[in-house]
Amino acid sequence: MTRIPFDTVQSTLAAVLRKLGFSPDRANTCARLFAETTRDGVYTHGINRFPRFIETVRNRCVDPQAEPGMVAQFGALERWDGHRGPGNLNAWAAMARAIQLGRQFGVGCVSLGNTNHWMRAGTYGWQAAEAGLVGICWTNTMPNLPPWGGAERAIGNNPLVIAVPRARGPVVLDMAMSQFSYGTLESYKKRGELLPVDGGFDSDGNLTRDPAAIEKSWRPLPIGYWKGSGLSAVLDMIAAMMSLGRATHQIAADPVRETGVSQMFLTINPQAFGPEPRTGEIVDGVVASLHNCAPEKTGGKVRYPGEQTLRAREENTRLGLPVEPAIWEQILAM
Amino acid sequence: MTRIPFDTVQSTLAAVLRKLGFSPDRANTCARLFAETTRDGVYTHGINRFPRFIETVRNRCVDPQAEPGMVAQFGALERWDGHRGPGNLNAWAAMARAIQLGRQFGVGCVSLGNTNHWMRAGTYGWQAAEAGLVGICWTNTMPNLPPWGGAERAIGNNPLVIAVPRARGPVVLDMAMSQFSYGTLESYKKRGELLPVDGGFDSDGNLTRDPAAIEKSWRPLPIGYWKGSGLSAVLDMIAAMMSLGRATHQIAADPVRETGVSQMFLTINPQAFGPEPRTGEIVDGVVASLHNCAPEKTGGKVRYPGEQTLRAREENTRLGLPVEPAIWEQILAM
Repeated sequence: MTRIPFDTVQSTLAAVLRKLGFSPDRANTCARLFAETTRDGVYTHGINRFPRFIETVRNRCVDPQAEPGMVAQFGALERWDGHRGPGNLNAWAAMARAIQLGRQFGVGCVSLGNTNHWMRAGTYGWQAAEAGLVGICWTNTMPNLPPWGGAERAIGNNPLVIAVPRARGPVVLDMAMSQFSYGTLESYKKRGELLPVDGGFDSDGNLTRDPAAIEKSWRPLPIGYWKGSGLSAVLDMIAAMMSLGRATHQIAADPVRETGVSQMFLTINPQAFGPEPRTGEIVDGVVASLHNCAPEKTGGKVRYPGEQTLRAREENTRLGLPVEPAIWEQILAM
Repeated sequence: MTRIPFDTVQSTLAAVLRKLGFSPDRANTCARLFAETTRDGVYTHGINRFPRFIETVRNRCVDPQAEPGMVAQFGALERWDGHRGPGNLNAWAAMARAIQLGRQFGVGCVSLGNTNHWMRAGTYGWQAAEAGLVGICWTNTMPNLPPWGGAERAIGNNPLVIAVPRARGPVVLDMAMSQFSYGTLESYKKRGELLPVDGGFDSDGNLTRDPAAIEKSWRPLPIGYWKGSGLSAVLDMIAAMMSLGRATHQIAADPVRETGVSQMFLTINPQAFGPEPRTGEIVDGVVASLHNCAPEKTGGKVRYPGEQTLRAREENTRLGLPVEPAIWEQILAM
């Protein structure tokens, strides 16, 4: 693992994007979002994901010059079309608009159809929370998970983000509907380890902690079994219905051909009624109640969602972003 | 099990409520919500729950005459105070207002603090969906679940409802953050059965399907382990923060003393931009994709959230509401 300064990473990625037709401004923002994802410790969706993102630009799933636009508006609700542009730029623009609406109306909602993979889901939760608003957003995905009672992949893992502003660093839940991603299954398999809890079914239909058996059956578990399966379905319905975009069953089940996904961006403004110091105290109170909970294991600690992020951010800003040399070479050669 | 006509159940419960100080109108609505809950097949929170509800009126956790009121308003966002009135009446009023706001602004949000247990969570999702809007609502609860990594109950099971309008019957997800409720654990124990999947830890800290061992350890599992634990925490934060009400750690951990809970009611209007037939087609398309999914077991079927409700409703309307004779005698004697 090499360490490379944030600015070098951002400018290197931006240069690659400009060569592919991104305008300088959009190349900079897109590159910044990738670099920030690695900086915040979400290594699966940062620099390591960049080569696959470039592949989707080259195969024309992602149109580097397409910009998102509003297609319908009523009060605090808007419908946007992503025009198959870069998923992270589209999502950033949609959440930025939801933040404006939340400031104007107390609550705001933007649906975004015809867009692409937004990379790190949590990005847009942090975006809202750092602007002082509660942010709730989700995306649908290609079919990659069997619904409860089903034998084949028919629902998406549809990541859901709920972010709460907080002076000492926001609370950001960023969770997919699958108990473990395929990337996590792969990592455990490579290390020869069992999963910490059941992660799916083997080919005989038995619950298992063996990542290889789950990869073979293509049957990872939704969180909470029937519950996460149902949650995935309603998130898909709402995102597709509000954006008049595609639902999971209409999206190509191929990671580099997945395009035309549908997303939702909701904001709620805790300061809408005027400056209110109690909101911060209430959130800090819940954080304290988690920190004060007796741990299961001696020396353990109960954490709030996103608690690890600020530590990763500080360390990676100070030491440079951790980059796998082979991937960095690949990017430098682009 | 006896069968009693819906109208008889409603008028019997309403008579009890009037004796306790409910106005005739409010007694009728409160009784209707209890009867509808049993009618829809949610037996834990309908007629069977009525005696415990009456206990909370008698012990003054619930003020039968208190009405909810708006305390702050900005655009599409309102804050309401439940004044410790009956939880189902308060929640019904809050969702009714969120529906109005959703019609006026495309999206609406009401936070409700200082209220009481709303009984069946799904009620308010059905309310929004039958009005043609997406309804998203949740409540916090007393601490009844250990957070991930914790040994003691410090988070609530915080039921979350997401409802999607649909001409052939809405899709309504109604899920608590615990994998199994204490009521479900009790039922399995009584029948001498193991849970279908791991439901918690035993006293040695091992995952188990034994309901008695989980009751003994007081350590049921959140859905998706760390994921449901985090989801519970952010739902609690938002409900308490937006309503300036209590968070889970401030609520008495006793089922008949639990009071002053905080709730959120959000609506999104799919018809805000004008009549749009495609929204219904999109939702039906997702339902069809679930129904068409190859089942895990021969003769099995993948269902959408809430699919069983209409069948229960039809049967219980036709045959009468199923009532346990002992509970009915208890109610008649009130």
